[in-house]
Amino acid sequence: MKKITVGAFLLSMMFVGVNAQSLKSPDGKFEMNFQLKGGVPYYNLKYNGNVVVEDSKLGLRLFKDTSIKFASEIAKPEDAKFDLNNGFTKTDEKRDSKNETWQPVLGEKKNYINNYNELAVTLNQASADRNIIVKFRLFNDGLGFRYEFPQQKNLNYFTIREEDSEIDFPTDLKAWWIVADYDSQEYKYQETKVSEIPARWPQAADANASQTLIKNAVQSPVMLKKEGKDPLYINVAEAAVLDYPASHLEVDAQNFKFKTHLTADRQGAKGYIQTPSVTPWRTIIVSPKAEELMASKMIFNLNEPTKYKDTSYIHPTKYMGVWWEMIIGKSQWAYAQPESNVRIGQTDFSKLTPTGKHAANNTKVKEYIDFAAENGFKGLLIEGWNIGWEDWFGHSKEFVFDFITPYPDFDIKMLNEYAHSKGIKLIMHHETSGSATNYERWADKAFQLMNKYGYDAVKTGYVGDIIPRGEHHYSQWTINHFYRIAEKANEYKIMVNSHESVRPTGESRTYPNYISAEAARGTEYEAFGGNNPDHQTILPFTRWMGGSMDYTPGIFQTKLDYYFPGDTRFVKTTLVKQLALYVTMYMPLQMAADLPENYKKHMDAFQFIKDVAADWDDTKILSAEPGDYVITARKAKGTENWFVGGITDENKRDYTVDFSFLDKGKKYEATIYEDGKDADYINNPQSYNIYKKQITSKSKINFKMVRSGGFAVSIKPVN
Amino acid sequence: MKKITVGAFLLSMMFVGVNAQSLKSPDGKFEMNFQLKGGVPYYNLKYNGNVVVEDSKLGLRLFKDTSIKFASEIAKPEDAKFDLNNGFTKTDEKRDSKNETWQPVLGEKKNYINNYNELAVTLNQASADRNIIVKFRLFNDGLGFRYEFPQQKNLNYFTIREEDSEIDFPTDLKAWWIVADYDSQEYKYQETKVSEIPARWPQAADANASQTLIKNAVQSPVMLKKEGKDPLYINVAEAAVLDYPASHLEVDAQNFKFKTHLTADRQGAKGYIQTPSVTPWRTIIVSPKAEELMASKMIFNLNEPTKYKDTSYIHPTKYMGVWWEMIIGKSQWAYAQPESNVRIGQTDFSKLTPTGKHAANNTKVKEYIDFAAENGFKGLLIEGWNIGWEDWFGHSKEFVFDFITPYPDFDIKMLNEYAHSKGIKLIMHHETSGSATNYERWADKAFQLMNKYGYDAVKTGYVGDIIPRGEHHYSQWTINHFYRIAEKANEYKIMVNSHESVRPTGESRTYPNYISAEAARGTEYEAFGGNNPDHQTILPFTRWMGGSMDYTPGIFQTKLDYYFPGDTRFVKTTLVKQLALYVTMYMPLQMAADLPENYKKHMDAFQFIKDVAADWDDTKILSAEPGDYVITARKAKGTENWFVGGITDENKRDYTVDFSFLDKGKKYEATIYEDGKDADYINNPQSYNIYKKQITSKSKINFKMVRSGGFAVSIKPVN
Repeated sequence: MKKITVGAFLLSMMFVGVNAQSLKSPDGKFEMNFQLKGGVPYYNLKYNGNVVVEDSKLGLRLFKDTSIKFASEIAKPEDAKFDLNNGFTKTDEKRDSKNETWQPVLGEKKNYINNYNELAVTLNQASADRNIIVKFRLFNDGLGFRYEFPQQKNLNYFTIREEDSEIDFPTDLKAWWIVADYDSQEYKYQETKVSEIPARWPQAADANASQTLIKNAVQSPVMLKKEGKDPLYINVAEAAVLDYPASHLEVDAQNFKFKTHLTADRQGAKGYIQTPSVTPWRTIIVSPKAEELMASKMIFNLNEPTKYKDTSYIHPTKYMGVWWEMIIGKSQWAYAQPESNVRIGQTDFSKLTPTGKHAANNTKVKEYIDFAAENGFKGLLIEGWNIGWEDWFGHSKEFVFDFITPYPDFDIKMLNEYAHSKGIKLIMHHETSGSATNYERWADKAFQLMNKYGYDAVKTGYVGDIIPRGEHHYSQWTINHFYRIAEKANEYKIMVNSHESVRPTGESRTYPNYISAEAARGTEYEAFGGNNPDHQTILPFTRWMGGSMDYTPGIFQTKLDYYFPGDTRFVKTTLVKQLALYVTMYMPLQMAADLPENYKKHMDAFQFIKDVAADWDDTKILSAEPGDYVITARKAKGTENWFVGGITDENKRDYTVDFSFLDKGKKYEATIYEDGKDADYINNPQSYNIYKKQITSKSKINFKMVRSGGFAVSIKPVN
Repeated sequence: MKKITVGAFLLSMMFVGVNAQSLKSPDGKFEMNFQLKGGVPYYNLKYNGNVVVEDSKLGLRLFKDTSIKFASEIAKPEDAKFDLNNGFTKTDEKRDSKNETWQPVLGEKKNYINNYNELAVTLNQASADRNIIVKFRLFNDGLGFRYEFPQQKNLNYFTIREEDSEIDFPTDLKAWWIVADYDSQEYKYQETKVSEIPARWPQAADANASQTLIKNAVQSPVMLKKEGKDPLYINVAEAAVLDYPASHLEVDAQNFKFKTHLTADRQGAKGYIQTPSVTPWRTIIVSPKAEELMASKMIFNLNEPTKYKDTSYIHPTKYMGVWWEMIIGKSQWAYAQPESNVRIGQTDFSKLTPTGKHAANNTKVKEYIDFAAENGFKGLLIEGWNIGWEDWFGHSKEFVFDFITPYPDFDIKMLNEYAHSKGIKLIMHHETSGSATNYERWADKAFQLMNKYGYDAVKTGYVGDIIPRGEHHYSQWTINHFYRIAEKANEYKIMVNSHESVRPTGESRTYPNYISAEAARGTEYEAFGGNNPDHQTILPFTRWMGGSMDYTPGIFQTKLDYYFPGDTRFVKTTLVKQLALYVTMYMPLQMAADLPENYKKHMDAFQFIKDVAADWDDTKILSAEPGDYVITARKAKGTENWFVGGITDENKRDYTVDFSFLDKGKKYEATIYEDGKDADYINNPQSYNIYKKQITSKSKINFKMVRSGGFAVSIKPVN
């Protein structure tokens, strides 16, 4: 396929003229040019002199420029005079730069470097006497830009019809993408050319518990690659999505062009803005090396430092959970018959007939506590502890949970005391069923209960359609809800791990207690229909770019026919690949998701999960290719211990680890976990070898990963 | 105009057959018949043997009969198989009756009589194996019916597409109505034939701050009259609208038929139902006498008794307010420039430039306290006391108020202490700007502040479009919000007077602290465009049928050119008519709305407002005709004092009060307030006479009311 708009491409060649503003990255490799063409703002981006992004249009369309008086105005036809995308003249230009080092509360490295040159162009729209600023920050790893709306006479309140930020690539790129949706990110990754996205789109959009698909659009972040002899890896995403809808990317397959598409509310509005205000940053991370791109912290750098006064309560935790057994269907969240009709505050749950399948019962929870404590875990998640699960989903029920009342067989006081006596903190679970209004009503009482019993982390959930009805998981209102809950949790010194919420875009810098989100297909999908073997090699290039994910690895018993004879479901991984995920996937609240009974059968392999850290002083992406493999080394926080993990896709693969990242002259003992020679993710997933070896920074070890296999190494200094 | 459906009319003549169920009122005057015709439920209503309501269809249409899994299903085409309006067979019939006397916490009489015969018909829909119950209650003043949905295997959750309860009148009736709207009841009453409603509808729908009009439909309650030699007054309304949308009445002008039209949410859904559940009651109050109809307590009787454990804090109060001067534009709610862009929690209001027009300042409030205390009032409302009024309206701003932070010139502690030292309680004001989600977030803190400073009543406000965006003032979610706030206020022992909320439908029986609502054009509209002189003669037949209204009477200075030379606005009333409203309009939180300076000029007339009660042991509607006049006598709670008020429309009118309602043999001193001979609501509104007279139960006094005038009498026993 050949790009049609050759004219426009040629035009971009003429771009840098007297009217253009040029900005270079600190290392000089990137160059961004901004120009008004006929009053319309454009930018482009070059790397080492080559065009990465052609002249691409900027601007927003509005419903009305000053105020929205009545909802009926939302429905009025488009009126170009309200738009902020034309008729501009440049009235000011400000430059700035920064080179700072900052420490994340929890992170992949001790220090994150925030180094950029900045250009802020003030544009005046004479017809309406309005000013906006387009701000560009050019880092050594790419470009971020956003719109800023100063408070001014003619721009105080407005409602966005659409943000039309274009990213126009000169050639057809390879893309790793999932379908765009206002309510779910839980889709299988596709690997196609940009030009092939529309043809693939329909089959890529499978069913989901709550979904509002946007045809021919893809989710942000999208991972791209210019193939050939000078490959270039490109990640298109956004940063600091706060008080604004999350964006998707409309695909112009003919022209290899993306354009923002914001999540609408039920009125079709895409953001209610009061000035002064700024949009999220649109980000384009670029590197000739996949490893460097994956290591980029640009999205975090584009977020604001936290204003929290105390972050001392925020800590990494490895946890187990009464969870996987419900996911696979062995036990259940509900105490009584699921899909029964119950009412919080009216139904006497102690009088319901228990099905005997309720997992969160005193006996079972104590067994989990015992096992978790014996193996050095500090946390135990328990789902299904509170009343309401009988009819929690699918009924658009607003008052579905109260978050404070345990089931009759869950003695919250006794269990917490028992857990604390063994050094375990229970992890709270607040499933909202999407009923955000109800959660806001109960949040204070729910967090007070957590404080009372010593819970310091909560897993929140938003399965199903959002209430307020008509809002979406990624619309402005709901995003505000997520961070409102984070702030309230901070008041109670509680960490949040949020599921079915919007993908993080670096907000953990600002809200460091908002540890992670789910926002992609996690391990649970292995029980729902399966993840592809390459899934975990793509996630670090997409979902993880803006923040950690609660992927819940650690499944040793991958075949579900173990539980249910004849069941064909299985987790598409070798056992060793599951170990490697603890290193390739950054997650400070890291789960060991399988059942104790399965770990007990492989205590030698389980040792790696017991040993591995969840927070890091350093991270080295040794080698990576989206959709193929990821090899990562990390240095555990405050120690000299290193961990290495390698995973591969559906293809077997050799990789030789060069341990030169270790301290010179030091001796280490490496414990090596590798796929057995006869291991196979379909036929023999539990075959592995474990051995120890003395290594130094000069060592090299070749690992043979079977298809969907991996390796893991635990490294400790010897004396 | 002749009704077209003669066939249907004849059919109804054949109605009472072997398959029909008949129900009679306790006094035998009413007869209701229920019948299935081809599996479709119908009812009719007769009074003294004459058809009042012809055979009228019943039923509901649903989106889906068991559950709503995804919002997208809301948009699916209609599917008759989900509906609950056909294919029924009768499987059971239960009869019941009640004759009880109950005491409202606050009311127009000491005792309300609840006397009815009941018929509950169970209908089975074989195709879906679902049962519903249609329950009829026939009182001596009319009919109520509702649908009941027992919890059952095939009916646990459903979403209503529409309730299609018809009320089919045999002839063209006279109607007093306002246009139907999902967000406002603040319209001018129209007086037309039912057949003329569609032609009048467009001009009856004037602009409003938040409106979602329903073409050719009218609001409930609608007041009707069969004219002729045997006149019949008919009121069509609803009762106990809880966890359900408020209904409107679609008009079939050709067939003189009304049909329910429920308030939709933004998804088009009209009620998310979990069984067991009941709908509100559809009510048809009928009487040959307008006075008897107006006195009906049927709508209250159809509500449930309160579950509140303590109602001792609920008490009547006459209050003044720092209010009218803002309404007319003399001063303002905002401290700084209105329409400035401010942010709660960020803007330092003490650093803004005050305009000097902020009414709720320490000096002015103390003056109001002094005047109110000197004249025996117990309450003082202050609006505009809290930060956020600069940009409170029209921007779809969610966090518009925090309800706890006073403006810099309002010393909440000092003013409350000052007020309490003089026997005054300040009345709190919580304007939400329609942002109900925000109010719910702050409600606890707001009520705690009220408890701290000794406020025991709050006026709430919902001006503008509702947030959650897409919800309406009368949709199920928002109605649940109103009563959720009532329940929360009860926890704090606080009384609620709610403005721009849904009209009450008798809920004060269940939520006795929810004293009143606005839900119609009140006095404020006199400053916004004017009420018609007959407005207050229609309200008691419509808006007031389900609960009291905060009409805020008592305007002595009716001409606004007094404040603003050349201003043509004026309150369309004589001064004496304003006095009479305190009797004709029942309101336990009753306001004297004018400025102290105006009362000071007419202290003799003001004496009536000082004397009049706000809660009653007895009420006699002496004479009334919708759109023409209302003459009411009431006996003050716990005393032997009576008050009589009479008002007329745009026509002057004589009325002779027969005082035979007074105790026989007792002597009374009557203080009489009447329009001056030269009084005129346009040219000379402040002309009045006041005199005293000894009266007994045998006395009769003739009053001459000028156009839009009235009279008022204060009666005390002499020893």
